Amino acid sequence: MYTTETKIRIHYALTDQMGVVYHGHYAQFYEIGRGEAIREIGFTYKDIEAMGIIMPVIDIHSRFLRPAKYDDLITVRTTLKELPIHHKIVFHSEIFNEQGELINIGDVTLYFMEVNEMKKSQMPTALRVKLEKYF
Amino acid sequence: MYTTETKIRIHYALTDQMGVVYHGHYAQFYEIGRGEAIREIGFTYKDIEAMGIIMPVIDIHSRFLRPAKYDDLITVRTTLKELPIHHKIVFHSEIFNEQGELINIGDVTLYFMEVNEMKKSQMPTALRVKLEKYF
Amino acid sequence: MYTTETKIRIHYALTDQMGVVYHGHYAQFYEIGRGEAIREIGFTYKDIEAMGIIMPVIDIHSRFLRPAKYDDLITVRTTLKELPIHHKIVFHSEIFNEQGELINIGDVTLYFMEVNEMKKSQMPTALRVKLEKYF
Amino acid sequence: MYTTETKIRIHYALTDQMGVVYHGHYAQFYEIGRGEAIREIGFTYKDIEAMGIIMPVIDIHSRFLRPAKYDDLITVRTTLKELPIHHKIVFHSEIFNEQGELINIGDVTLYFMEVNEMKKSQMPTALRVKLEKYF
Repeated sequence: MYTTETKIRIHYALTDQMGVVYHGHYAQFYEIGRGEAIREIGFTYKDIEAMGIIMPVIDIHSRFLRPAKYDDLITVRTTLKELPIHHKIVFHSEIFNEQGELINIGDVTLYFMEVNEMKKSQMPTALRVKLEKYF
Repeated sequence: MYTTETKIRIHYALTDQMGVVYHGHYAQFYEIGRGEAIREIGFTYKDIEAMGIIMPVIDIHSRFLRPAKYDDLITVRTTLKELPIHHKIVFHSEIFNEQGELINIGDVTLYFMEVNEMKKSQMPTALRVKLEKYF
Repeated sequence: MYTTETKIRIHYALTDQMGVVYHGHYAQFYEIGRGEAIREIGFTYKDIEAMGIIMPVIDIHSRFLRPAKYDDLITVRTTLKELPIHHKIVFHSEIFNEQGELINIGDVTLYFMEVNEMKKSQMPTALRVKLEKYF
Repeated sequence: MYTTETKIRIHYALTDQMGVVYHGHYAQFYEIGRGEAIREIGFTYKDIEAMGIIMPVIDIHSRFLRPAKYDDLITVRTTLKELPIHHKIVFHSEIFNEQGELINIGDVTLYFMEVNEMKKSQMPTALRVKLEKYF
């Protein structure tokens, strides 16, 4: 299992007139969490794209337990529960407020795809090598 | 069952550097579809808020089948499969491209809540009356 | 002078916790207005990109006179005051609420650039021909 | 003069299909910079709102010199050149890429307004006291 944590400060643009973070913006929090999870093992998603692999999102499931508010410093805990076998990878995100309360859970599934031929691919070996020690 | 359709033109801000609509923006398409579904029965979500009821989203599940691209005119088909019994309502969205292909499926669950006491409520009677004839 | 009008319905995602449209979203309204202005003369910005020309924004000036609110149906009046002589084009936008009050003014300057060599270019002739009759 | 610097990592949602940050998102970078500038003197914009003062944006002018790209770590330098005399305050933002090149300049003017009566107000004394030593 591979887990990392990233902090995000809520700015005004993310709020809506209910006085909370608009539900549609959580997908961005998962994305930031995934990006930082990859960076922490010494890789970036930008590197992956430079190898000709893109990772389109094909499924997201979000559950909203408590609201996030303006100026909150939320923590996104991103977990890779298992290494991908084929072309699919699932990131699990849990978001906490400053009181340590779980406010949101997200599961995001992405494909590895070769950008030139737009066909399913696999996790690049260079990334797999770095991740294997956690599993 | 109550179903409506709404068209949305994809503008540049919704695209990302993969050349497709960023996955996180589909929640907005579901929201626009829901809003127009309510408007078509002679009501608005704004009216609901004016009655002291807010409808926070508590669950979203999105499946991405095909990309949407810049300048596409997508159709959001929003369906209410059943009238809510208690405080929860589920809207089902299917999004189609101009070729009539299904590109995205979304299920969004919302609560009815009294804004003053922030406790669970029910669908306002005035809205229920308008919807009942479809079920 | 070439002027067109486009209507936009304000959805929830565009509001912030002040209960009004977040100021940063007006750039999207100008963009939608420009896009529809080009479409109305029988062209699209997508066509322009297909010709190898992109139009990056290089200057925006926005003045906020009155707020726009959730569910408002705003009108974006987009005006091209003069045909571009060189590589630069300026669109002037005025946004009105349903009471006909002017709520926002925007001036957006864009460049014509050849995407392959990333150097300044000119308005495509096919577009200029369509616009010339208005000037 | 009061100047602070804030770093922002560009995530995917901020890019568009030109492969750069969408121009409309820079208003958010200015907002984040302003927020952090206020935080660094031991205050927050949230505190200001808690005092019954809101700060709507009434004018933005942005100049785009170079693009920002995915995964760039940009620096927003926010400067208050003078203390506000009446109800108006102007923040000047300069944004730099990792090579130290200036990529964007923004000037944002905001009003101080009493939220209850929605009339023009002044900078709260508690904030002015903290800022005065820089001028």
